[in-house]
Amino acid sequence: MNQRFLKAARGEPVDATPVWFMRQAGRSLPEYRRVRERWGLLEIVSDPDLCAEVTLQPVHRLGVDAAVMFSDIVLPLRALGLEFRLVDGVGPVLDAPVRSAEAVQVLRLAPVEEAVPEMMAAVRRVVAEDLVPVVAFAGGPFTLASYIVEGGPSRDHHLVKSFMWHEPQAFARLLGLLADLAVDYLSAQVASGANAVQIFDSWVGVLSREDYRDLVLPHTSRLLAGLRPLGVPRIHFGTGTSALLEDIASSAPDVISLDWRIPLDRGWAMVGPEIAIQGNLDPALLLAPSARVSQGVANVLALAAGRDGHIFNLGHGVLPQTKVEVLQAVVAQVHQTPRIRG
Amino acid sequence: MNQRFLKAARGEPVDATPVWFMRQAGRSLPEYRRVRERWGLLEIVSDPDLCAEVTLQPVHRLGVDAAVMFSDIVLPLRALGLEFRLVDGVGPVLDAPVRSAEAVQVLRLAPVEEAVPEMMAAVRRVVAEDLVPVVAFAGGPFTLASYIVEGGPSRDHHLVKSFMWHEPQAFARLLGLLADLAVDYLSAQVASGANAVQIFDSWVGVLSREDYRDLVLPHTSRLLAGLRPLGVPRIHFGTGTSALLEDIASSAPDVISLDWRIPLDRGWAMVGPEIAIQGNLDPALLLAPSARVSQGVANVLALAAGRDGHIFNLGHGVLPQTKVEVLQAVVAQVHQTPRIRG
Repeated sequence: MNQRFLKAARGEPVDATPVWFMRQAGRSLPEYRRVRERWGLLEIVSDPDLCAEVTLQPVHRLGVDAAVMFSDIVLPLRALGLEFRLVDGVGPVLDAPVRSAEAVQVLRLAPVEEAVPEMMAAVRRVVAEDLVPVVAFAGGPFTLASYIVEGGPSRDHHLVKSFMWHEPQAFARLLGLLADLAVDYLSAQVASGANAVQIFDSWVGVLSREDYRDLVLPHTSRLLAGLRPLGVPRIHFGTGTSALLEDIASSAPDVISLDWRIPLDRGWAMVGPEIAIQGNLDPALLLAPSARVSQGVANVLALAAGRDGHIFNLGHGVLPQTKVEVLQAVVAQVHQTPRIRG
Repeated sequence: MNQRFLKAARGEPVDATPVWFMRQAGRSLPEYRRVRERWGLLEIVSDPDLCAEVTLQPVHRLGVDAAVMFSDIVLPLRALGLEFRLVDGVGPVLDAPVRSAEAVQVLRLAPVEEAVPEMMAAVRRVVAEDLVPVVAFAGGPFTLASYIVEGGPSRDHHLVKSFMWHEPQAFARLLGLLADLAVDYLSAQVASGANAVQIFDSWVGVLSREDYRDLVLPHTSRLLAGLRPLGVPRIHFGTGTSALLEDIASSAPDVISLDWRIPLDRGWAMVGPEIAIQGNLDPALLLAPSARVSQGVANVLALAAGRDGHIFNLGHGVLPQTKVEVLQAVVAQVHQTPRIRG
């Protein structure tokens, strides 16, 4: 099996910079769009064969160095009894958002293997192919809490913030449950063969540093500590985190995934050399002319300067408008760029 | 006239920290909601008496140290022949977005005094009251370009970014026109008596530092240089700018308005002591219990540490859900907190 991704995540030397893309499985691939003509999103993630097929499509098509399970961060919320819909062009929608201390108090965490057994089955099918390392992922506590309280994607996240300030104990219980859920869910996927885990706390960047540090970070730290015994690389991802990176680093993930807002060298300096870095090309840049894309890729690699511990990725997920040829060209360029220590 | 705001903007000593709020005129005030029962947004800004009345409502009600003209950044786009609607709960919508080099090429900048004469009339009416300094504002080049190309608010701004990379000359022409428009528009408002100007380049934080520096900053710098002869404080505002602050500082505004993502002392250290700082409480925090609001206000003031050149404000506009009593309490706390050099 191709080991570049895992070596880089551990800060070890590699023959070429590993590359994968968040949302690499999905609308940018024509074979995925063909699957979607017949099945809905929830149908795909409910069918381990179909889920494994879609998860592996970009590995075959793009030559990436890791497979990321095709799923959505709200899926395991079923273990908390929370039902949602995945609405095209919108995102996850919860018809019964949780907006009171009482509603949090009654939440109970059921065994996640019973709530979403199909994910573990899908992981086993992908792992059985033995092509590349498999990344399992879970939503971060604040980001999932935002969906749960807001009821869906939000522009200003004021409902979840308001809940956080008005009901600090209930908010802490909710984030504690979500951290437990992430540990259970990712542990089950690693037990099924997943080789690395990523926490998508995508929306933490809407918080002030003070609120992040006081009200979210303790849960992130406990979550990451709970994953440590698994012995696999633990990646933390967020957007808009330029002012939070030192705090995120203090939660001690193995890898921090940077968004595109901060130059890679500056972000790496903020988190320190002991943590590996993933990122951080602007996903929208893949819509630019090829010379500009190539220049952007070269710039990220130049800022990584051949240091061990860099995994090339985007700063957020692949946009659905992205052409497959562009993704292929990026993979080729990353792999072919000599790793010369700058 | 109360001069605190202007003194702080010039970095001079003040008797109390000045405070105003972006979007202080608007839905948080019951007297504004009564006006809105009878008139639409465009009707208000088209009627100088009504516009002046709404602009002054928060001055009377809240005791803020500056009046900001009630308007919308898309209003002066009429001088470019661009028509828009203001849709409640959505924002500005352009039914005919500009998405080709040809469409940019035919844009012509008409005299802004002829395109929106009502704004200058409204400024004169507010100035005539002689209560507090009057802040005129204009959209920043990238932010207006985003509305013009996207056709409205955008989650990922991929259309305007794509246009920026595919049609760099047309994009540069568009931003040049928008910089000229801002200079004309703000010059006309200052000639009508406005005492300060603010550039809302609210969405620049979606750009990588590389793109901001290469493709937007030159226009911002030219815009700010064009405003310098007016001799009034020039404020630059953006959100998500934690990684862009040094570049924004290089465009040489008199004041930089920080969003809430970066601690005030850290942001100020990045832009340097020669530039005054405005901000930077999380607007959503005004929905928190009063003790938490008060703690947040105290924290911002503590990080400003009594230095000359701090204007208290939020990190973005007042949320419509905000209670007027909370805004009043913030103003009182800011004014009553002793300015002890930390």
